[in-house]
Amino acid sequence: MVVNTKPPSELQDATRIVRINRPFPLFRGGSLPNVEIAYECWGRLSKHKDNAILIFTGLSPSAHAASSADDPREGWWEYMVGPGKPIDTQRFFVVCINSLGSCFGSTGPASENPITGNPYRLDFPELTVEDIATAGREVFQSLGIEKLYSVIGASLGGLSALALAAMYPDEVKKLVCISAATHATPFAIAIRSLQREIIQNDPKWMNGNYRFNDTPKQGMRLARKLGLISYRSSKEFLDRFGRKRVFKSQPIDPPFSAEFEIETYLEYNANNFIDQFDTNCYLYLSRAIDWFDIAAHGGTLEAGIAKIKTSSNLIIGVETDSLFPVFQQQELAHVLTKNGLETVFVKMPSDQGHDAFLVDEQRFSPVVREFLANS
Amino acid sequence: MVVNTKPPSELQDATRIVRINRPFPLFRGGSLPNVEIAYECWGRLSKHKDNAILIFTGLSPSAHAASSADDPREGWWEYMVGPGKPIDTQRFFVVCINSLGSCFGSTGPASENPITGNPYRLDFPELTVEDIATAGREVFQSLGIEKLYSVIGASLGGLSALALAAMYPDEVKKLVCISAATHATPFAIAIRSLQREIIQNDPKWMNGNYRFNDTPKQGMRLARKLGLISYRSSKEFLDRFGRKRVFKSQPIDPPFSAEFEIETYLEYNANNFIDQFDTNCYLYLSRAIDWFDIAAHGGTLEAGIAKIKTSSNLIIGVETDSLFPVFQQQELAHVLTKNGLETVFVKMPSDQGHDAFLVDEQRFSPVVREFLANS
Repeated sequence: MVVNTKPPSELQDATRIVRINRPFPLFRGGSLPNVEIAYECWGRLSKHKDNAILIFTGLSPSAHAASSADDPREGWWEYMVGPGKPIDTQRFFVVCINSLGSCFGSTGPASENPITGNPYRLDFPELTVEDIATAGREVFQSLGIEKLYSVIGASLGGLSALALAAMYPDEVKKLVCISAATHATPFAIAIRSLQREIIQNDPKWMNGNYRFNDTPKQGMRLARKLGLISYRSSKEFLDRFGRKRVFKSQPIDPPFSAEFEIETYLEYNANNFIDQFDTNCYLYLSRAIDWFDIAAHGGTLEAGIAKIKTSSNLIIGVETDSLFPVFQQQELAHVLTKNGLETVFVKMPSDQGHDAFLVDEQRFSPVVREFLANS
Repeated sequence: MVVNTKPPSELQDATRIVRINRPFPLFRGGSLPNVEIAYECWGRLSKHKDNAILIFTGLSPSAHAASSADDPREGWWEYMVGPGKPIDTQRFFVVCINSLGSCFGSTGPASENPITGNPYRLDFPELTVEDIATAGREVFQSLGIEKLYSVIGASLGGLSALALAAMYPDEVKKLVCISAATHATPFAIAIRSLQREIIQNDPKWMNGNYRFNDTPKQGMRLARKLGLISYRSSKEFLDRFGRKRVFKSQPIDPPFSAEFEIETYLEYNANNFIDQFDTNCYLYLSRAIDWFDIAAHGGTLEAGIAKIKTSSNLIIGVETDSLFPVFQQQELAHVLTKNGLETVFVKMPSDQGHDAFLVDEQRFSPVVREFLANS
């Protein structure tokens, strides 16, 4: 049973919720007794419901990809989504979902477990990218859409898009997969595993039972700094910060305090993050990325990719991405092409590493625009 | 006044100590009332004292670069130093020093402050690479050596070798600088800054006043894991570990525990480290690396390098090094060559990243051997 409800009062006006009032089975076993998925929409669904684009997000954003009349705040992909923009809301009906397991309106470890009346915390079942994909499917099905014009995602969103295309091959026409891959490398797993361990090492984490008014902020702050280091590139840091020093105002600074601008950059951006994101949600989504492997769908990487039956694909990689290095997108595009699927592979020379899709408008805009415009 | 003393009983037999019984001025100001520098020797000093090679170490090793009759344990550069090896102890008199600020016999933050009778801890003055270089000089001067046949170092040791060659240009004939640079990039500073912050965030650090029998092990363990990730390369991890899983013996594992071999690799190696190294020493040496900038010697990078007057140089970089990327060694070699100094630049295609010099015997041995053999 899928029903649309009005958004809860604490959410921004543009946020809508799909509530699934039946058990939601999960990819690694078990199920959730019910599920809510938050999403936002832009544009108008065509009469034949054939102009819908679904956007999955990276680990940390909400469904607010772009501003709208209902919520004029800048979205996380503002340059990409809107009237006349590459994902053109004058032509397409665009839906962005907040991932299952996240904390911006969708059901996740911070949500109330209806069976106990308390937050799930670590009682939340094992979450996978496949579950995020299936939850996204619930959203477009609830809107009466049978087949997406395109599914689009970058980073974790790219994994989710890939999972959707592999699991529900008849429901996706065009796949856009950016800075993602068929599975994570051990280097990326090492980074995320260390982030999770840093968080769990914070005494305030209390095995997931932290107080919501006294969260493990120190652990989250340090883990986010490690994230920020891995999201951009050495080249970008060199050009932006070099060895520029911080102006020290205090006569006596604490020992080993920041001296270089790169250090205050990390501090500023990490502090901006820690109040926004629930810690257990972060841990669950982080682990889901490590677990994802398209080989789970058929036994091998090739068999997993062979499930995909899209009419065309756009696979984008960034040369300076250390988390999902460009050889991974190249490999994905190669196998898709070998399978006879029309596939465009673009290797972006951006300096901004894994996060380039968020900021390198000049390179990403024309590529996405052209791919979506061609029918 | 420089005197040789017998090694303290707690040190291995091969370790010798130079004790400097006068104030030792420091590069950023202040001084130490006296200083001890631990070192080991191999081979025999020639009559003309013209066959001496000084080795500076990376951040964490002791002076025990290689085994000897006095200490048969394997050294940290065993393949490189010994009879018939690239740094041939049948021909050369080889000295390896434990860096000033470290904790394997040399004076550092864990040593007793003779003025208070307590360990220095954070009262230890600001330590720089230049001080490590000058302390190394005290060792070879105490042995009656006026000019080194060669100074050799990798990583922090490479910075120290570079500093020695720039500060005391008449005292070095050949410079071997491996996986180091004239200064650190902001990416490398970010990694080290985060390591220091992780350590200081451990409640047991207590602003440097931790109990020596209850040290901030959790912080050190996490910081070391970040180090391990940065010391090797994504490529090596991919080939060694891929997505290999850990055999789980416990029926119920702690939440988010290790599942991939890359995670147990980090755990095993981090645990091996934390009991060996003093935390405050680690913080001081880590910051010294960030501070080092050859531009401090003359105002610019070029002016700093121009101080060097060696007769020949071997500069080695590793293609997969993310901490001191290969463009930095290339730049150093380029300026040395422009200054009219005979310089060999070697770009190693090793997969082992920053730590390749420790393990890639096949590539490093012939290059170092040939350079030292040519007179």
